[in-house]
Amino acid sequence: VDREDQAQLADLMEPLHAADIADLLEQINAYDRKRLIQLYGREFEGEILSELDENIREEVIAILNPVVLAEAVRDLESDDVVDLIEDLEEPQQEAILEALEDSDRIAVEQSMSFPENSAGRLMQREVVMAPEHWNVGQVIDFMRESDDLPEQFYHVVLVDPRLRPVGNVTLGRIMGSPRNVQISDLMEETFEAFSADLDEEDVAYAFNQYHLISAPVVDGNGRLVGVITIDDAMAVLDEEHEEDILRLAGVGEESSLSDRVMDTTKKRFPWLAVNLVTAILASLVIAQFEETIAGFVALAVLMPIVASMGGNAGTQSLTVAVRALATRDLTGSNVWRVIRRETLVGLINGAVFAIVMALIGIVWFGSPLLGAVIAISMVINLVVAGLAGTIIPIVLDKLKIDPALASGAFVTTVTDVVGFFAFLGLAAMILL
Amino acid sequence: VDREDQAQLADLMEPLHAADIADLLEQINAYDRKRLIQLYGREFEGEILSELDENIREEVIAILNPVVLAEAVRDLESDDVVDLIEDLEEPQQEAILEALEDSDRIAVEQSMSFPENSAGRLMQREVVMAPEHWNVGQVIDFMRESDDLPEQFYHVVLVDPRLRPVGNVTLGRIMGSPRNVQISDLMEETFEAFSADLDEEDVAYAFNQYHLISAPVVDGNGRLVGVITIDDAMAVLDEEHEEDILRLAGVGEESSLSDRVMDTTKKRFPWLAVNLVTAILASLVIAQFEETIAGFVALAVLMPIVASMGGNAGTQSLTVAVRALATRDLTGSNVWRVIRRETLVGLINGAVFAIVMALIGIVWFGSPLLGAVIAISMVINLVVAGLAGTIIPIVLDKLKIDPALASGAFVTTVTDVVGFFAFLGLAAMILL
Repeated sequence: VDREDQAQLADLMEPLHAADIADLLEQINAYDRKRLIQLYGREFEGEILSELDENIREEVIAILNPVVLAEAVRDLESDDVVDLIEDLEEPQQEAILEALEDSDRIAVEQSMSFPENSAGRLMQREVVMAPEHWNVGQVIDFMRESDDLPEQFYHVVLVDPRLRPVGNVTLGRIMGSPRNVQISDLMEETFEAFSADLDEEDVAYAFNQYHLISAPVVDGNGRLVGVITIDDAMAVLDEEHEEDILRLAGVGEESSLSDRVMDTTKKRFPWLAVNLVTAILASLVIAQFEETIAGFVALAVLMPIVASMGGNAGTQSLTVAVRALATRDLTGSNVWRVIRRETLVGLINGAVFAIVMALIGIVWFGSPLLGAVIAISMVINLVVAGLAGTIIPIVLDKLKIDPALASGAFVTTVTDVVGFFAFLGLAAMILL
Repeated sequence: VDREDQAQLADLMEPLHAADIADLLEQINAYDRKRLIQLYGREFEGEILSELDENIREEVIAILNPVVLAEAVRDLESDDVVDLIEDLEEPQQEAILEALEDSDRIAVEQSMSFPENSAGRLMQREVVMAPEHWNVGQVIDFMRESDDLPEQFYHVVLVDPRLRPVGNVTLGRIMGSPRNVQISDLMEETFEAFSADLDEEDVAYAFNQYHLISAPVVDGNGRLVGVITIDDAMAVLDEEHEEDILRLAGVGEESSLSDRVMDTTKKRFPWLAVNLVTAILASLVIAQFEETIAGFVALAVLMPIVASMGGNAGTQSLTVAVRALATRDLTGSNVWRVIRRETLVGLINGAVFAIVMALIGIVWFGSPLLGAVIAISMVINLVVAGLAGTIIPIVLDKLKIDPALASGAFVTTVTDVVGFFAFLGLAAMILL
């Protein structure tokens, strides 16, 4: 790029997949990105746009020549166009919609009428369907005559006369069967149709659970309106996981490396603020025992250990609980067993670390009583951590609050408060 | 089940998908599970076994009648059998291998000869391939005559005379083309072949990055030995994510709700032990300032706040860094930009919380100097948190240590030590 050699750039980019070019564009800085795109020039694959992070995508669309942009989006399937434009600002959306052919624009606009993160947004409109009474030969002839088959499809969706999907037939089974076989005899055993307003998270769960490859989407009247393919479901699953990880760490949604400093700062701020409140609550507990600490400064040295162990054990339990809720492995039928298990785990690990800490207390400070105090409070806090780490996510989930987002703050508050209170309270009773 | 009504049970289970039956078996307790399986009796779908958690699977296989078990595994594709047996104990493995037909057994044994978590273990042996010089008609006739097509396949793999894959053709394109078209003219643009000993994580990454649906696997000589389909890649991706989340929380690998109490206790122990060492290091820092604390007990009340804010900010930065490393978004070309961004974010949030804490320090304890101490140490610790949270995962990754597993302990150590040292050290200098 620095040598402004357009031909060489084209040679270098040629063998790269759109996804890799998108990654490349994300990783270089804004100035180089602009120069690269202007030099790359004439052609710009629509797929590259699909693969870009939102922020960068807006930037790139603003740089691109409108003619090149129109060309780029025209290649894309309807679901990719929806995915591309749903996060853009109004004027950019309009520009792209106008570049589409009429039929495509209507398809995209219809998809956009479904709620965000719904099956309707995820689906592609291009569906290969056949009446259920056809035979294999009719289906093959129909496909051969059709000159507008989607790029990628894996099933023929069988529909009844009212266009309601009744089953899926894999292309493999069609090709492996003689022409006179009834197509409906080849239907797959597992068949799921999704309502267009279903949450995409539920769609991804079903794809993963039932090993689906593609599934039809129906409108309110049960009529076929589109099809979702596994690669889109995989992308959703990937995104949901990413969100869960980031939420558990208090980073907020859709955080990415290409966010600007102020955006990142703002996204992380709320969680730190919540943590500050938590920490202050813990400090208020400590403040109740100022006299105890003044009388025995070793307490100040050791007290963070109890709280920190509780916080870690709580995080372990809550992460397992949050994941089990997300994968629907934690249900009414095993909730008591899980709570009992976490409590027992806390008790056993608490007992082990209690012994270790008692020894450290005795060796370091020469006080068996101090050892006893830290040992007892360690057991108490690890049991509480196991209980709180399991019960808090379950309760939040029941209250329809995302447990990945909110559990951490609550569990840490509990383990900090209990940790300091148990340790300093016992110390006040036993040592003074 | 309690009424031992076999017919009714069969009716209830009939409409359920194997994956749902597996979930059901996982959620009930061991006693009910045994009775349910014995009552369910004669038939047992192999797929249910595939879907079960390891621990439960061993238990179920031990309960199942050998004849029923043999029946169950014979239906499965070779990759599912591999997945089923690779975690079983020797004798159970043998029993299942003996139940297979000779050709299947050999296929499974060959797959088992590849390293764990490799593409070779993930692939299915059943491949539909065609010589690259055939035309569409020949391919269709070949498939129609073959009576052993896999259950699910999406591509015909074109091979050269040495059985080396040269491209993929989607079934859709074959069906949409006239019989006399050269099959090699229909090849897909994006084509990836994986070496059998490639790590399954890399395979899943490539599927997600390039939107692959299926991809051939080759041996050391480049010859086609199997094919990996997207549903298997999706399962790997799901597992990897799960592992990353659990590792970040220090829960250890393959933790699941069906683990027994002692297993869970043991898995969580190492992380808690590491945390104990970290906490003791922090305590050693505090111990250096015992006199300072004795002179000014308010320090003991406030000091956990600085450490806790640093720990949280560090976790935020490290989670973003660990994810960016996993998704390969963080590379040599943007590492300095990311470090600079994280430092700036730490500086800005640090400044905001410094002001808040200074006010709290003044109002609560009436000491502007204490306010200044906590404010300055807050800024220092949040900047350090941003730096450590980014640099530590990157360094661990360079050293080939899984950053998801190890970063947390290091980052917390840094933020605890720096937090206590900055706060108490400044207090010693300024207040006394």
